[in-house]
Amino acid sequence: MSDNGINLDFARAERLGIEEAILCAGKSDAQLAGILDRVAARGATMLMTRLAPRALASLPDAHRARIDYEATSETGFFGPVAAPRESGRVAIVGAGTSDMRVCREAARTLAYNGVAPTEIYDVGVAGIWRLMERVPEIVRHPVVIAVAGMDAALVSVLGGLVPGVVIAVPTSTGYGVANRGETALNASLASCAQGVTVVNIDNGYGGACAALRALRANRTGNPT
Amino acid sequence: MSDNGINLDFARAERLGIEEAILCAGKSDAQLAGILDRVAARGATMLMTRLAPRALASLPDAHRARIDYEATSETGFFGPVAAPRESGRVAIVGAGTSDMRVCREAARTLAYNGVAPTEIYDVGVAGIWRLMERVPEIVRHPVVIAVAGMDAALVSVLGGLVPGVVIAVPTSTGYGVANRGETALNASLASCAQGVTVVNIDNGYGGACAALRALRANRTGNPT
Amino acid sequence: MSDNGINLDFARAERLGIEEAILCAGKSDAQLAGILDRVAARGATMLMTRLAPRALASLPDAHRARIDYEATSETGFFGPVAAPRESGRVAIVGAGTSDMRVCREAARTLAYNGVAPTEIYDVGVAGIWRLMERVPEIVRHPVVIAVAGMDAALVSVLGGLVPGVVIAVPTSTGYGVANRGETALNASLASCAQGVTVVNIDNGYGGACAALRALRANRTGNPT
Amino acid sequence: MSDNGINLDFARAERLGIEEAILCAGKSDAQLAGILDRVAARGATMLMTRLAPRALASLPDAHRARIDYEATSETGFFGPVAAPRESGRVAIVGAGTSDMRVCREAARTLAYNGVAPTEIYDVGVAGIWRLMERVPEIVRHPVVIAVAGMDAALVSVLGGLVPGVVIAVPTSTGYGVANRGETALNASLASCAQGVTVVNIDNGYGGACAALRALRANRTGNPT
Amino acid sequence: MSDNGINLDFARAERLGIEEAILCAGKSDAQLAGILDRVAARGATMLMTRLAPRALASLPDAHRARIDYEATSETGFFGPVAAPRESGRVAIVGAGTSDMRVCREAARTLAYNGVAPTEIYDVGVAGIWRLMERVPEIVRHPVVIAVAGMDAALVSVLGGLVPGVVIAVPTSTGYGVANRGETALNASLASCAQGVTVVNIDNGYGGACAALRALRANRTGNPT
Amino acid sequence: MSDNGINLDFARAERLGIEEAILCAGKSDAQLAGILDRVAARGATMLMTRLAPRALASLPDAHRARIDYEATSETGFFGPVAAPRESGRVAIVGAGTSDMRVCREAARTLAYNGVAPTEIYDVGVAGIWRLMERVPEIVRHPVVIAVAGMDAALVSVLGGLVPGVVIAVPTSTGYGVANRGETALNASLASCAQGVTVVNIDNGYGGACAALRALRANRTGNPT
Amino acid sequence: MSDNGINLDFARAERLGIEEAILCAGKSDAQLAGILDRVAARGATMLMTRLAPRALASLPDAHRARIDYEATSETGFFGPVAAPRESGRVAIVGAGTSDMRVCREAARTLAYNGVAPTEIYDVGVAGIWRLMERVPEIVRHPVVIAVAGMDAALVSVLGGLVPGVVIAVPTSTGYGVANRGETALNASLASCAQGVTVVNIDNGYGGACAALRALRANRTGNPT
Amino acid sequence: MSDNGINLDFARAERLGIEEAILCAGKSDAQLAGILDRVAARGATMLMTRLAPRALASLPDAHRARIDYEATSETGFFGPVAAPRESGRVAIVGAGTSDMRVCREAARTLAYNGVAPTEIYDVGVAGIWRLMERVPEIVRHPVVIAVAGMDAALVSVLGGLVPGVVIAVPTSTGYGVANRGETALNASLASCAQGVTVVNIDNGYGGACAALRALRANRTGNPT
Repeated sequence: MSDNGINLDFARAERLGIEEAILCAGKSDAQLAGILDRVAARGATMLMTRLAPRALASLPDAHRARIDYEATSETGFFGPVAAPRESGRVAIVGAGTSDMRVCREAARTLAYNGVAPTEIYDVGVAGIWRLMERVPEIVRHPVVIAVAGMDAALVSVLGGLVPGVVIAVPTSTGYGVANRGETALNASLASCAQGVTVVNIDNGYGGACAALRALRANRTGNPT
Repeated sequence: MSDNGINLDFARAERLGIEEAILCAGKSDAQLAGILDRVAARGATMLMTRLAPRALASLPDAHRARIDYEATSETGFFGPVAAPRESGRVAIVGAGTSDMRVCREAARTLAYNGVAPTEIYDVGVAGIWRLMERVPEIVRHPVVIAVAGMDAALVSVLGGLVPGVVIAVPTSTGYGVANRGETALNASLASCAQGVTVVNIDNGYGGACAALRALRANRTGNPT
Repeated sequence: MSDNGINLDFARAERLGIEEAILCAGKSDAQLAGILDRVAARGATMLMTRLAPRALASLPDAHRARIDYEATSETGFFGPVAAPRESGRVAIVGAGTSDMRVCREAARTLAYNGVAPTEIYDVGVAGIWRLMERVPEIVRHPVVIAVAGMDAALVSVLGGLVPGVVIAVPTSTGYGVANRGETALNASLASCAQGVTVVNIDNGYGGACAALRALRANRTGNPT
Repeated sequence: MSDNGINLDFARAERLGIEEAILCAGKSDAQLAGILDRVAARGATMLMTRLAPRALASLPDAHRARIDYEATSETGFFGPVAAPRESGRVAIVGAGTSDMRVCREAARTLAYNGVAPTEIYDVGVAGIWRLMERVPEIVRHPVVIAVAGMDAALVSVLGGLVPGVVIAVPTSTGYGVANRGETALNASLASCAQGVTVVNIDNGYGGACAALRALRANRTGNPT
Repeated sequence: MSDNGINLDFARAERLGIEEAILCAGKSDAQLAGILDRVAARGATMLMTRLAPRALASLPDAHRARIDYEATSETGFFGPVAAPRESGRVAIVGAGTSDMRVCREAARTLAYNGVAPTEIYDVGVAGIWRLMERVPEIVRHPVVIAVAGMDAALVSVLGGLVPGVVIAVPTSTGYGVANRGETALNASLASCAQGVTVVNIDNGYGGACAALRALRANRTGNPT
Repeated sequence: MSDNGINLDFARAERLGIEEAILCAGKSDAQLAGILDRVAARGATMLMTRLAPRALASLPDAHRARIDYEATSETGFFGPVAAPRESGRVAIVGAGTSDMRVCREAARTLAYNGVAPTEIYDVGVAGIWRLMERVPEIVRHPVVIAVAGMDAALVSVLGGLVPGVVIAVPTSTGYGVANRGETALNASLASCAQGVTVVNIDNGYGGACAALRALRANRTGNPT
Repeated sequence: MSDNGINLDFARAERLGIEEAILCAGKSDAQLAGILDRVAARGATMLMTRLAPRALASLPDAHRARIDYEATSETGFFGPVAAPRESGRVAIVGAGTSDMRVCREAARTLAYNGVAPTEIYDVGVAGIWRLMERVPEIVRHPVVIAVAGMDAALVSVLGGLVPGVVIAVPTSTGYGVANRGETALNASLASCAQGVTVVNIDNGYGGACAALRALRANRTGNPT
Repeated sequence: MSDNGINLDFARAERLGIEEAILCAGKSDAQLAGILDRVAARGATMLMTRLAPRALASLPDAHRARIDYEATSETGFFGPVAAPRESGRVAIVGAGTSDMRVCREAARTLAYNGVAPTEIYDVGVAGIWRLMERVPEIVRHPVVIAVAGMDAALVSVLGGLVPGVVIAVPTSTGYGVANRGETALNASLASCAQGVTVVNIDNGYGGACAALRALRANRTGNPT
């Protein structure tokens, strides 16, 4: 077992059109440092997700200095990342203040991959007119990422109004029967609006990757 | 164990203001017939819920002849029941065609207890303007029973718009992650709209009883 | 994303008759401070629930000075709140000492909205005569909030004795098969007493809001 | 694999003081017939539980003729069984009509083992005074078997009133969140009344066996 | 309640670009006939899903004669449907023979909406070279629908190889821990391949609708 | 709400033959101190369970000085408790070292109520001869409490060998599919040995109370 | 989609040393017939599992005539299968009569692949001496398949006594908390005996395949 | 209860061919120290698993000095352990960096028992060619331990390619629907590759023990 068993996939961007990223939660400080050593050695960049402040602080100084960190989403860009080249194609719509950590994880993932999303937050359906006012703006986007916890009713309402791709990101917001996001997940999957798709709970990164897949298919008509 | 262990609660209407009813599912033909023997002997009436056509057919002819049966809700009124005396106080709002068996169980329970509900069906949020058109009518009712399966998004949308009592009746409509109504139940309980209350899955009878409690409290200001 | 994505609903009281509130758990210190900035700027008041002592301590001094905090329920009233105008209409009945945090969340929510509840605690059914002694007092209230964890047998016993509105608030009290409140929730929903309604686990705030809906319907006969 | 793999435990009565029994559900007609062949060959008797009418009808005539069958509990006594020698020691208390199949399975198991139970049915807590009237009678029994489905509140109420052994048999009565008996099971295990014990859902046979163990310990002070 | 509460959404195609469809499971024979009456009266067409042979047989002859039925998928086209105008854009990849009912539901939904899919079946990963041989063909499609039950490993393998949109449709194929599709669902959502999206268990219709959303976004770059 | 809502049940010992106890987990320091104030004021004693070292340390000195504390079981006797008067009637059999906290909770509860148990530990079935050697000793007790986590196979083996009362206390020992005790609980309830009864996970107190009920029934033949 | 999407894996035996098999449950009559057409066309043989009598009866006569069917296990050998060449290497140990359908599925799978197992049935641990008598015989086998439902205590007892490979096959035998085999599965996985491995619920076929893998590894010391 | 109830099984190695080990999680510092006292007194050695750094630090110095500790796996060898005598027989294949703690627990357990595994890590199927490159090496081992979390697709891919014994160790890597390893567990058990066996979540120790059983059977053809 050389190199701590770490086996990075630098060819991913060519193959899938999405840059490599690293989920930091569940990895030891030594493992994270080892990964960044290799990225730095190649002169590559890396998106870091679920990078808790404590883990950030424990990184070697040289690595930490190269990280553009955002506290809300606990994401970091390791190495220089160009400004987004494309906007107006993806909207991120969030239900509540507590969902913003997930919304921003999606936004940062898109930005890292060159896409600037439109962000529309705190429009949960308990006060549905807040959402309705924004619908004309939302439907202009070919891809909409809907981020909601608890009952995830936002997903169904958007699914019935938006003609483009709708990607639901259920969140673990809530308590009791919210079941750490399981209710939002199941409600999104059982949505009465047809053709809504879903990713894992709190997976803002995955929602953004799904949007990137849709944009890529969109751009050329042939993804390869 | 005399009398087959059956122990009817004829004093319930005086005590709680709700008439006795019998859940027929899970009881044998002999048990159902025995219960009706006693009701008939007292000259009383009885609401029968979950009375499947097969169970109805197996009742003694004399009993069956006294039953006003509705197939959609599988409910029966045993003995003469007066027409409702009161209307415009309770609205039943249903999401889809498959929820009508539960909507009608609630409607029949209300009717048996003297209340004629307003019924508004097939207004699920996948096509939210169908619902929005009916909102001005719905909000005029002090009590609203919201009946929905799958994601139960209807419950949250109504909860944010209706100032009165909102009673959610989740239904087992749907498949897969709808989990026989569990997702609709949990989404209703985790609703982002505050003060929505919930009864058991498919429990149209219970939703109606909750409405009767609210009306009774409403009527006198002091329920006893 | 201006204003941190916060989008307050100051019109809620007019629309639903219930004041806006903020669930503090799951929000960052910066998000909470930002919300209070806006409330203060409008000269409005706010009910704060699930406000842990640590989160309270991290608020800016000016905001913290305006908060009337209660440790048992972890609730705060931000800004001046008038004394309740109404009493004798809502009873809160709690099963055990460990349920008092939830009971008091309901009581504080009612008080914030102008209603003084009758509070009857530690009357779980393991010693049922403690409960039976209080029944004559309890049944005089048009609305009863029953707060219980573990087996929630209190809910069923009250449901069979109280003619008014019964709102069950299951709690996460207990361990093992109590399943963080799921057993109390399901037992309440499956109650053999008809017309009992239920809100989310530990949701004292929601139970109080449901009571306010019932009182409002009660007061005018027409909630709008 | 000689003898169809059937391996009966005729020494069980000597060892444990409880007669051998056979759970018929899940066994093929051929397997049941083979078991009875051996019991008959030894001149032994056998308690048969979960013996559905269809399975009874498919047994060889000679075997069927030796079976004393009760339809409510779907139990059969194969071979001659003596009348109970003992009474007044075990009470079976049932919540509703739908629980009687389980109550009677317990009663028949006791009878097969020589014990005549006191049977008190349809005393669920939704109408708690029906139960309260019978409490003085119930508490005179050293062993009480409480049979209830849905919320199983009967178990907790009895547990707080009965000083002897309380054995809860949760039933699958109910629908929706009753979860085929899981809610009654968990509510019984989480009961606020201390020292209540529980057996598997619908396991009237097991509840009776537990009562027999308690009686046996009771009789001699030393069970072996 | 006029018109049996049925409220069809004939404007859906204009709004969302997907034709109205009716899920037949869970609707009574009378409800289905009533829906078709209205569709026929408008001279419209309708996609019928989960139309069991028994339900088909019970429709009025005039309606049944207008239905193009496929037994594998239990789908029907009511009224004349034009041949697909577009091909080579969507691939449906299925893991096993038992998944074909779901694969074909997706294929029929696409065909009803004018899209002819490429169908590649029986390429589960237990024999991974069967799949690998087809990968060059699969990756040429901008949208891939992956249909698999049990462990749904096919989804992850495809997700790592296909650059376009990947929509997983988990199926209820399997037994025991396959848990009626829940394991395939969760494995798809937890896939180590990023940006894979998921719809409800057995929801071939929903997978196809998601593909149509992606194609529509793809076609114009602006879906409205 | 006078007296912090605390409502002690000092009559419990007379009624049920089991002394009052207090579950300390889930109660605030102020609530615990308030309870002990009242117990002290009456000159009564109290069994305290789940009394964590941190909670013990936070009690007022005067109270803490009166507590006989055992760290393994986290139990305390408040006030003077007489030495056990009875032995040889109850055996506690534990599967592993990690189960000893639960075993000792049962032992301490019995001791507080005057019963000295026989304790036989670390005899899990992975090395079944360790158990078999002790069986002759175990079966001499009219009541056996079997404490085991993970697969709880100890419960079934004992259930088939012990003729007296067998009370299973499943524990949360283990990880992964041990599911915090749920697997041990369900395995105990589904035991192939008939008449085994079960209490809640980790409920050593409840197991001891059940044993006390059995002994009391045993002692007089009539528990009241 | 030519050939009904069926894609058989005739190279499996060479690659894995286990013959191809077909799980018949979940496949339509037409699909089964189509598969056998191809097997017959190649002159190959096939193991058929979960072949219900009804499905067998619906096969074309020519195919049915070539099937050696066993009713207990619902398995069929299609085409001529040689008698086993090897014995004494695999023991199948079953807990109860209801587990025999799974035991025999394993036995038939082994026989189809040339291995004659030793079969020891009805030795569940409720009467543990029945098992203990057979232990000397069981431990002589290098591979033991333990088949048990409910609490699966047999698995743990064997795991502690058998030095060779122990493969647990949990069964869905039982009711209530047996949870269709989930309790037996989890108890087997959480077994206190180390190194026991587990396959899916009721998967006698899979248990046999695992035994074949172990034997193959065993035979040559190098499986390829 | 002498000796703290600790009852070590020093005869295990002779009986099962696997050395005794101690799971440190869930045991108190005093219990761990007591166990090591006895091991030291016998001059024996012991494998310690789940030995957290904090628990290691709290051991008496004399004991700690005798422990060869590895931080990644949190395992310790107490006392002198000989170097492995055997290699090339067991491969451990791991999906991701976060799975290495489990992989190494398996590797250390094998080493403690004299077997040096081949370790191949970070070959999850999201980039399947990384795995495919290593397949020729992997298949040369008679026993393969596959360690993977989330979707565990690695297990199915290996199961279809490896002819020898395949032991899956699902891990709790992942979040949301990964459900602390339950999804990986169920996906492994429901694998479309036949004859794959599974151990408990994160149970690297158990996976290694299963491999040792297979090797032992392999070595002599008769394990006793």
